Amino acid sequence: MADVWDREKVTSPGGEERSPLQQKLQRPKTRDCTTACWSFVKRQLSRVGDDWYFLFILGVLMALISFAMDFTVVKLFRAHRWLYEKLDGNGLLQYMAWIVYAVALTTFATGFSQCVSPQSGGSGIPELKTILTGVLLEEYLTMKTMVAKMVGLTCSLAAGSTIFLGKVGPFVHISSMIATYLGGIRTTVTRDYENKSKRYEMLVAAAAVGVASCFGAPISGVLFSVEVTSSHFAVRNYWRGFFAATCGAFMFRLLSVFNNEQETIIALFKTKFKVDFPFDLPETFIFIILGVICGILSCVYLFCQRRLVGYVRRNPFVQRFTATEKAVYSGVVTLLLASITFPAGLGQFMASRLTMKELISSLFDHRPWGALSLNGSLDLHSRVDPDNLWVDWCHPTFTFYGTLLFFLFMKFWMLILATTLPMPAGYFMPVLIYGAVIGRIVGELMAFIFPNGIKSEGVLNPIIPGGYALAGAAAFSGAVTHTLSTALLVFELTGQIAHFLPVLLAVLVANAIAQKFQPSFYDGTIIVKKLPYLPRIRSTATGSYSVTVGQFMNTHLQCLAQDLSSTQLLQVLTSTSDPVYPVVESTESMVLVGSVQRSELINFLQNEAEQIKDNEKLQAKDEDMMKLEGRWRIDPVTFQLSPSTSLHQAHKLFELLVLQHTFVISAGRVVGYVTRAELKKVTEELANGRVPDTE
Amino acid sequence: MADVWDREKVTSPGGEERSPLQQKLQRPKTRDCTTACWSFVKRQLSRVGDDWYFLFILGVLMALISFAMDFTVVKLFRAHRWLYEKLDGNGLLQYMAWIVYAVALTTFATGFSQCVSPQSGGSGIPELKTILTGVLLEEYLTMKTMVAKMVGLTCSLAAGSTIFLGKVGPFVHISSMIATYLGGIRTTVTRDYENKSKRYEMLVAAAAVGVASCFGAPISGVLFSVEVTSSHFAVRNYWRGFFAATCGAFMFRLLSVFNNEQETIIALFKTKFKVDFPFDLPETFIFIILGVICGILSCVYLFCQRRLVGYVRRNPFVQRFTATEKAVYSGVVTLLLASITFPAGLGQFMASRLTMKELISSLFDHRPWGALSLNGSLDLHSRVDPDNLWVDWCHPTFTFYGTLLFFLFMKFWMLILATTLPMPAGYFMPVLIYGAVIGRIVGELMAFIFPNGIKSEGVLNPIIPGGYALAGAAAFSGAVTHTLSTALLVFELTGQIAHFLPVLLAVLVANAIAQKFQPSFYDGTIIVKKLPYLPRIRSTATGSYSVTVGQFMNTHLQCLAQDLSSTQLLQVLTSTSDPVYPVVESTESMVLVGSVQRSELINFLQNEAEQIKDNEKLQAKDEDMMKLEGRWRIDPVTFQLSPSTSLHQAHKLFELLVLQHTFVISAGRVVGYVTRAELKKVTEELANGRVPDTE
Repeated sequence: MADVWDREKVTSPGGEERSPLQQKLQRPKTRDCTTACWSFVKRQLSRVGDDWYFLFILGVLMALISFAMDFTVVKLFRAHRWLYEKLDGNGLLQYMAWIVYAVALTTFATGFSQCVSPQSGGSGIPELKTILTGVLLEEYLTMKTMVAKMVGLTCSLAAGSTIFLGKVGPFVHISSMIATYLGGIRTTVTRDYENKSKRYEMLVAAAAVGVASCFGAPISGVLFSVEVTSSHFAVRNYWRGFFAATCGAFMFRLLSVFNNEQETIIALFKTKFKVDFPFDLPETFIFIILGVICGILSCVYLFCQRRLVGYVRRNPFVQRFTATEKAVYSGVVTLLLASITFPAGLGQFMASRLTMKELISSLFDHRPWGALSLNGSLDLHSRVDPDNLWVDWCHPTFTFYGTLLFFLFMKFWMLILATTLPMPAGYFMPVLIYGAVIGRIVGELMAFIFPNGIKSEGVLNPIIPGGYALAGAAAFSGAVTHTLSTALLVFELTGQIAHFLPVLLAVLVANAIAQKFQPSFYDGTIIVKKLPYLPRIRSTATGSYSVTVGQFMNTHLQCLAQDLSSTQLLQVLTSTSDPVYPVVESTESMVLVGSVQRSELINFLQNEAEQIKDNEKLQAKDEDMMKLEGRWRIDPVTFQLSPSTSLHQAHKLFELLVLQHTFVISAGRVVGYVTRAELKKVTEELANGRVPDTE
Repeated sequence: MADVWDREKVTSPGGEERSPLQQKLQRPKTRDCTTACWSFVKRQLSRVGDDWYFLFILGVLMALISFAMDFTVVKLFRAHRWLYEKLDGNGLLQYMAWIVYAVALTTFATGFSQCVSPQSGGSGIPELKTILTGVLLEEYLTMKTMVAKMVGLTCSLAAGSTIFLGKVGPFVHISSMIATYLGGIRTTVTRDYENKSKRYEMLVAAAAVGVASCFGAPISGVLFSVEVTSSHFAVRNYWRGFFAATCGAFMFRLLSVFNNEQETIIALFKTKFKVDFPFDLPETFIFIILGVICGILSCVYLFCQRRLVGYVRRNPFVQRFTATEKAVYSGVVTLLLASITFPAGLGQFMASRLTMKELISSLFDHRPWGALSLNGSLDLHSRVDPDNLWVDWCHPTFTFYGTLLFFLFMKFWMLILATTLPMPAGYFMPVLIYGAVIGRIVGELMAFIFPNGIKSEGVLNPIIPGGYALAGAAAFSGAVTHTLSTALLVFELTGQIAHFLPVLLAVLVANAIAQKFQPSFYDGTIIVKKLPYLPRIRSTATGSYSVTVGQFMNTHLQCLAQDLSSTQLLQVLTSTSDPVYPVVESTESMVLVGSVQRSELINFLQNEAEQIKDNEKLQAKDEDMMKLEGRWRIDPVTFQLSPSTSLHQAHKLFELLVLQHTFVISAGRVVGYVTRAELKKVTEELANGRVPDTE
């Protein structure tokens, strides 16, 4: 039998080697065959690379979370709507039901998330963007933060269109937290050392999954996350992102089919635009004008938003208030917002009964409201009619133009106010809806001016106002976030791509204006929050191409010679606070040998002190004779710049290789160092038009 | 008056300073106002940045070229079809007309392009990919090559589906040539020095424009060009690409409206798929299986294609033949291809009367051919019916299953043969059509098995075979080119995005298989043509993360000391052939001072020799005393690696900063250098499973 085993071992290609002990065991053949098959499958599966399983799991997990959250939010919202409608007739009770619901949710969301983890507040994209440039933000990717974010976000979403906030940003954050957690599990399973670049790749993919599982839009999810989080991008990461995002989006849509919400997988906000003749050529100009309007409004919005958030962070009174009573602050703000949106009050002029999803569906409607409102009766029903959501926009005396304009006016400052709330919430969905309202107004005006459509070669084709809403949504949200992929996002959301050229034009125009005059929403947050992010070199900074490292490097260098004594070392450590010190052969030659971490040195000195204490009695050694050579772990220097390296090259290097500091070498001697701080300083100086002097 | 001028000068904000001479001139006020306005406009325009005008012009130019080429091709083709149909009844004359047309065109295309510029042959994407990694390919981006490529491509396209080649690749090439030319004009106009990184940015944008102006598909144009040409990508380039591609695509579609081909801007191959219920859930599995089929077939195709092209390049007989008589070779191959596609012969079984565009339109048809062929009469008409292109696929006895399979079988080797033709032609469109045929077969089989559709919750929804054709086209072309953006491309081509999840799944599966087993079409060409391209490190090369520069750097270093004599220098130059030499302080210290080009040294020696000749009579100076210090231009070293830099970091650095060589420094001494050759060698060794030894 052993013979047979041996023969088998020889013939089976790639079979695993068996220990002699195993060979002795008389196992039945079928079982052996199963084992062989299993090991073959296992080998094949492991050849695929664990990355892909990891990405698959990430995608599916995020889809499950997204679906579960939506499910909970819908249940909560339905309960509220049911209560609100039951109380019909009693204004005061209705008002109470309306505000208590929202205030309770936001207060809890703020209180819980701030208690568990203060890092869970806000969108999360600015912080992720900072992390992806190589900065470590403490506590930002922990499980605790994830729990806080998930619970808080569910409450924020359940408060619905009252506080008018979305879920994209937090989902990107949650996704990156799950990716980090899964990465931790993977390293313990495969016993692989944690790889920095692999971790980076996974975070990029996670951002894509986050967007994709929100909207079920994989392609634009990948592109949006790339545009928002990265300045440079490896095409191989794009692949990973696509795979994970497709898994996430597919699963997310699949779940809604299983839940009997839909019959099959279709787009989230399916539209029925005419595809034979989606728009006429002259309309392209109107689309471009719409782009200009969205661009200008986005600049105003970004400016005001940054100012208000900055004010809230700086004002001593508000600061003291929010420092201790964040939940109360949220409650007060929500009370104001909810009172304004109360449907029997001002809310009736801004369609406040509709949820965020219903708002989008109503605005993307392919039917012109002008024609609809002429035919139908315009009484506001006590219940929202899912098939005629537009009715909520048509106030009998105010008309829908009035409500749309009132919505724009009110939501402008209400949204800015809502962005100051310190709870987990996304800011993308609101700007998408805001843009759709802008587009809808333009579209309805066009339909009003040309009731039969624009005449082209004798054929009259009616205007589709929904197309304008589509373009407005893409243009405004694109301008606020400085992204182009919103154009693609609206197509994936609606399942129709017939308008792709006009929408793309509007997005380009709006983006050009916004990028010219204002930093993006996320960059603005980075500025206000003073996150350690390396800004990009503006192409308008014309002098930037001639700036070299020699002009901005830090020359206040404290080198450690290899033959340094402990006393000298102590002196250096107490007089400076650099995190890294260069180690040179000698202070005369200044030839770089490597670098050493400050923490390493401190450890070394502490050990030294203890040792000396122990040895004191045994022998009285002259301390200065104890040369430190070879005592600390010297990190090899992997990159060296020279004073003639250009700023652009150095900037690219820091950004792409996620460096923290490099030394500058000239003719073999260390002459300075460059860290992110120096780069940031020179980049900001250039942006302000100052070119550093040539020394 | 001078007073007024002065006051005006003070008050007008940002007004240009005028010379006293100008102030003296008594100009009329209105004219002055116009000048001021004009200078204001000019300043505003110049503030936008000349990049954007440049990109706009590039987009519009490419659209014009694309349209003009399509126009010419259609005219040529119509003339041919008219002649062919006129000769109906006379088989021999028809045959002659059929083959002479194709043979004449390809022979001329080959002859002309090879005469004018041999670099114009083939697709051009592999060469562009190589150029974008920083390698200079001579003659590749000249005007001469452009003319050759344009004329040759027009003829190739006019030969139509007989030789079955497309235009994407050459358009990318033409676009990059125009960008280079425009860049040259710009540098002369703005008197700006030619910037390397700016040139790179423009080439990337040009590639996007090339694809976009072919298909009128801006978004996928950008993504496809990124995936095909780059391994890393700056998001700011993405913006440029988008802008230029949108201009190109918009102009391209606009021209066809002006030419009365269409009433308004719609997609190139508009489809009419049902959007309410595009596909049922169980169909997703079939889409994935389709992806698997496409993936496997693409591997076979890529393998055979690479082998045949390699064979044609290596075989001494074919080589001798093609070296001298390229045009004859094209003629002979085309004769064979045209004879097979003759519509009265074998061509009737493979719908060879249809052009490339008609083939796509017929395959993407939303109606199931099975149902159509039962209703309609199946006689082949003498003319192609534009509304019922599917009739050409339905042979009365062979059925359309037969023709589709026959098409697959025949075109497989015919296409591979056609790729060996040394004339300007693209290889993307054919694989797109090939994939559509694969998808159509699967779709029609599904429609045959489930004639009433798959039952889902009591509702029967018919199968749409066109959706499968869409998925097949995207999956096969994506697998062959290793891109995912083909998924988006088919949506932009058809103007419908309802199938986005199944198509994306099919593309992902097909890509996973193809990327696992074969290099992409373009990478294969790079391998066969032996272009100096730096391959990427495969993620399966598990040992790659622990490889450091010290293990693969070149230590055969010939340093030049600063105090080198001419005789020694001559010795070094004659004994080695390195393009760059490191300059060190002295051969003892080996401290790097800079580098010097070989050409610089040769120039120096020549000048030296002349000078000596002149001075010989005046004074007999000891040659060895003439130290060379400070005589040649020493380039500063901008980057230095150390032996402990990892392979991944070094690879990234070379790829991203477009480096050609770097020196390796250890403890202040030059110990070796790394060029693309070393990196290429170690990457290839790792791909073959060999890890370099640790020294």
